[in-house]
Amino acid sequence: MKKSLGAKTFAYPTPVWVIGTYDKDGKPNVMTVAWGGICGSQPPCVAVSIRSATYTHGSIILRKAFTINIPSAAHVKAADYFGMVSGRKEDKLAAAGLTAVKSEKVDAPSIVEFPLILECRLIDHIEVGIHTHFIGEIVDVKADESVLGDEGMPDIFKVKPMIYEPGIRRYYGTGEFLGQAFSIGKRD
Amino acid sequence: MKKSLGAKTFAYPTPVWVIGTYDKDGKPNVMTVAWGGICGSQPPCVAVSIRSATYTHGSIILRKAFTINIPSAAHVKAADYFGMVSGRKEDKLAAAGLTAVKSEKVDAPSIVEFPLILECRLIDHIEVGIHTHFIGEIVDVKADESVLGDEGMPDIFKVKPMIYEPGIRRYYGTGEFLGQAFSIGKRD
Repeated sequence: MKKSLGAKTFAYPTPVWVIGTYDKDGKPNVMTVAWGGICGSQPPCVAVSIRSATYTHGSIILRKAFTINIPSAAHVKAADYFGMVSGRKEDKLAAAGLTAVKSEKVDAPSIVEFPLILECRLIDHIEVGIHTHFIGEIVDVKADESVLGDEGMPDIFKVKPMIYEPGIRRYYGTGEFLGQAFSIGKRD
Repeated sequence: MKKSLGAKTFAYPTPVWVIGTYDKDGKPNVMTVAWGGICGSQPPCVAVSIRSATYTHGSIILRKAFTINIPSAAHVKAADYFGMVSGRKEDKLAAAGLTAVKSEKVDAPSIVEFPLILECRLIDHIEVGIHTHFIGEIVDVKADESVLGDEGMPDIFKVKPMIYEPGIRRYYGTGEFLGQAFSIGKRD
């Protein structure tokens, strides 16, 4: 028997992604989101939801570009900090001792110290309650050579991405290998 | 120095969610997705992307409802199977030995054996390449009493949600506790 918990955002896992943008003056800013996910394969697209009150929101509209910077577990404090403070008030990257670099393919900065970056071009957005749901086409993925494994693909145990748990609001790491997709569930 | 990997859907983590729908005849069907995420807080909303070729796609449009059934790691084989075969051809739940039950608040079935269910009412959809991106309002969350922990909230170590890794296409479990959000990153 299941218990009703009400209308809540209790979905597991949600990601821990740091959105990189340039403001109107070209100053880099970053903001952590958990409301997002891949939303298309051809072209590869990703969606993130951001409140209009944030500094990042205006920068995405203005520049029509953003990056998704995927932090490793070692960056948990920086990622949490980036979600609590507005870029209007603080230079968050400087405060965290991290470095912004211009992306190769979009008008947005990426974080040098984070292992995996998605460079995204804004292609659509819709309003969902108090959030704007931004759809970005992923025009390139950049990875540190140190996190690449078999066949030059990112190795999740080297990237060490985090999970956010939206109920009691905690961060978790990546767990054990469970199986190969499109294979382990095959029926004879 | 980072290496360019091209325009790919290499975002970590992505979820492993099983979408439940009724078809035009009221037959329950399920399908696994990794393209999705929470997309709003007020009202609580979730987005999932599904190709128009799938059987699930037509059922969501018809019924304007779906469930997100979050499998535990123990259900990895069933979840993988649900993503490989069409409900047009097979009764996937019967084949996996799992049970559908009518949801309380939406016109969609949920899976009795899965620990956490989001009951969703379709409120919007947009086309993103070959996928339709469905926005659902989460009208209720149902959880097995056995996965509830402190303060009656879901305990992630009891739910045991999976991560999907879209590069080499593997499933992983939930890892270790890393920190309390909106707290661990506070600066003095």
